[in-house]
Amino acid sequence: MINKSKKGLFEIDERIDLIREVTPIRQRAVEAFHGLLVDFCKQRDIPAIVKGLRAVSDFDYELQMAQMNNGLTGVETLFVPTNPTYSFLSSSLVKEVAAWAATSPTWSPRRSWPP
Amino acid sequence: MINKSKKGLFEIDERIDLIREVTPIRQRAVEAFHGLLVDFCKQRDIPAIVKGLRAVSDFDYELQMAQMNNGLTGVETLFVPTNPTYSFLSSSLVKEVAAWAATSPTWSPRRSWPP
Amino acid sequence: MINKSKKGLFEIDERIDLIREVTPIRQRAVEAFHGLLVDFCKQRDIPAIVKGLRAVSDFDYELQMAQMNNGLTGVETLFVPTNPTYSFLSSSLVKEVAAWAATSPTWSPRRSWPP
Amino acid sequence: MINKSKKGLFEIDERIDLIREVTPIRQRAVEAFHGLLVDFCKQRDIPAIVKGLRAVSDFDYELQMAQMNNGLTGVETLFVPTNPTYSFLSSSLVKEVAAWAATSPTWSPRRSWPP
Amino acid sequence: MINKSKKGLFEIDERIDLIREVTPIRQRAVEAFHGLLVDFCKQRDIPAIVKGLRAVSDFDYELQMAQMNNGLTGVETLFVPTNPTYSFLSSSLVKEVAAWAATSPTWSPRRSWPP
Amino acid sequence: MINKSKKGLFEIDERIDLIREVTPIRQRAVEAFHGLLVDFCKQRDIPAIVKGLRAVSDFDYELQMAQMNNGLTGVETLFVPTNPTYSFLSSSLVKEVAAWAATSPTWSPRRSWPP
Repeated sequence: MINKSKKGLFEIDERIDLIREVTPIRQRAVEAFHGLLVDFCKQRDIPAIVKGLRAVSDFDYELQMAQMNNGLTGVETLFVPTNPTYSFLSSSLVKEVAAWAATSPTWSPRRSWPP
Repeated sequence: MINKSKKGLFEIDERIDLIREVTPIRQRAVEAFHGLLVDFCKQRDIPAIVKGLRAVSDFDYELQMAQMNNGLTGVETLFVPTNPTYSFLSSSLVKEVAAWAATSPTWSPRRSWPP
Repeated sequence: MINKSKKGLFEIDERIDLIREVTPIRQRAVEAFHGLLVDFCKQRDIPAIVKGLRAVSDFDYELQMAQMNNGLTGVETLFVPTNPTYSFLSSSLVKEVAAWAATSPTWSPRRSWPP
Repeated sequence: MINKSKKGLFEIDERIDLIREVTPIRQRAVEAFHGLLVDFCKQRDIPAIVKGLRAVSDFDYELQMAQMNNGLTGVETLFVPTNPTYSFLSSSLVKEVAAWAATSPTWSPRRSWPP
Repeated sequence: MINKSKKGLFEIDERIDLIREVTPIRQRAVEAFHGLLVDFCKQRDIPAIVKGLRAVSDFDYELQMAQMNNGLTGVETLFVPTNPTYSFLSSSLVKEVAAWAATSPTWSPRRSWPP
Repeated sequence: MINKSKKGLFEIDERIDLIREVTPIRQRAVEAFHGLLVDFCKQRDIPAIVKGLRAVSDFDYELQMAQMNNGLTGVETLFVPTNPTYSFLSSSLVKEVAAWAATSPTWSPRRSWPP
């Protein structure tokens, strides 16, 4: 989703390219859209959203969002727990490291580094 | 309270009007003030603050604020749990939906929509 | 699963009957088994477990179990959030109410009451 | 409440005596009852339950119980946060200390020691 | 500590042997004792306790215990976070797996298996 | 650390002076640096970071940061729980009070007040 209040580190087109590159799965589509995720799902007849869950502090907010989205259009949300080996990786911590570190850490896809 | 760092979606006067409209309870007063809530309570001899609690993530911060307020002026804070049917409603999620949705959801008072 | 340390309120056969009665979904099977859930999944080539999540306090334990199960046999766990209207229902609270209440609350299937 | 599954450290009568002794507040009544707290409140026309809240881990369970009680009979629950100086005191930790300690810690009423 | 209410899977002597075997660190002593950990620390002039922390649900209880212990004898507690790769391992989950699994998982010291 | 995104209430030099004044411990050094804390530790051969922990909501974020830092350079993090009497003090709450209060609360070092 194009979030108006949050300026990403990369431009939309770069983000789409990066996601395509690091998820070599058949039958996945990467798309950008304006507006609410629930409206996007409705237009495409998408019945469920799948999200990763890392930490307990994520869960409280994600639970609220899932329940609100279900109330708005009936869409379901399924949560998949992270592999514990990467459970500490949050986008804000990664960006802070990226601002200072000279070389790409092992857990960051190479092409996105340095930003 | 008039929070200097946080710009509300509505002006102070509009907020007071909206709150009056949606809380048709006798003997309730709606007032704006500058400064700390504890000082406002002291000036009016208000012995206790009543707040709603939705989620566990709210509680940790609210507990700290209640304990600090009690330490500053002795005011007590009482917490009332939300009706579970509306437990997922946070002001930030509501504003995000409001920015895109065409019609007012069932859980938002009509007159405040669209903002 | 037949849990040796936890004696259920109902016998296994009664539980299977009750679950069948309240989940009139085609293509669902209700089965009892001895041993670990991961072994049961492996024997039947079941690739994923779907569980409901009610509260934050559930999540911490369920996340650990999901990560351990994934490490043991590679099975994935998907979590579905509860409808907020029923988010407060835990089996221990329901049993406590059932021990004293004369009539079945609206949120309990009729035939299981009184136990 | 007389909880059948949990055997208290003191007998009911001793507990009532101890509570009376350490809460010298006019107009407080200390009573024992059988059954559910919501039924006790209904019989006496008690509209609200006031409970202390110590830690985040308490809150999740207490929130569920408050919402279930409200759904059963309409009784409200108000939560009062603990004085932070005593926030670490849980009955299970106190009992563990009591089993070994020779003299009463400062935070335990004298007469209840040794148990 | 010898915990009277909790019967361990292994006898005290076996536990001491197992801990010695899997922690080949010079200058570590493994000892059993009766009573409170704070009293044990006081008798030996041990100024600080070091504990591992796995999950958020652990932290709330451990924080209370650390604050109570500090209040009783002044002993400090230091917490070390787990390696995330093993963050899902709790003794209760390990015992449940051990009751059914034929061979030792990679994360369990060999000699303790089968129990 | 000099955090580029967060403007402190005091200038770096004032902060260093204040910290020196309120921590009259021999053998402590107060220093400012640019960049990541892990790089600072590496340059000085500092093997461990010691941090205070107040509330459960702190812990989730601090655990992630500790695990990431350990993964980057092998540095360990040790957590020390706060004295419960001051567990409600967060820098954001203190700043909010400071903006309005006329005199220094008992828990704030005098010289830093008013800011």
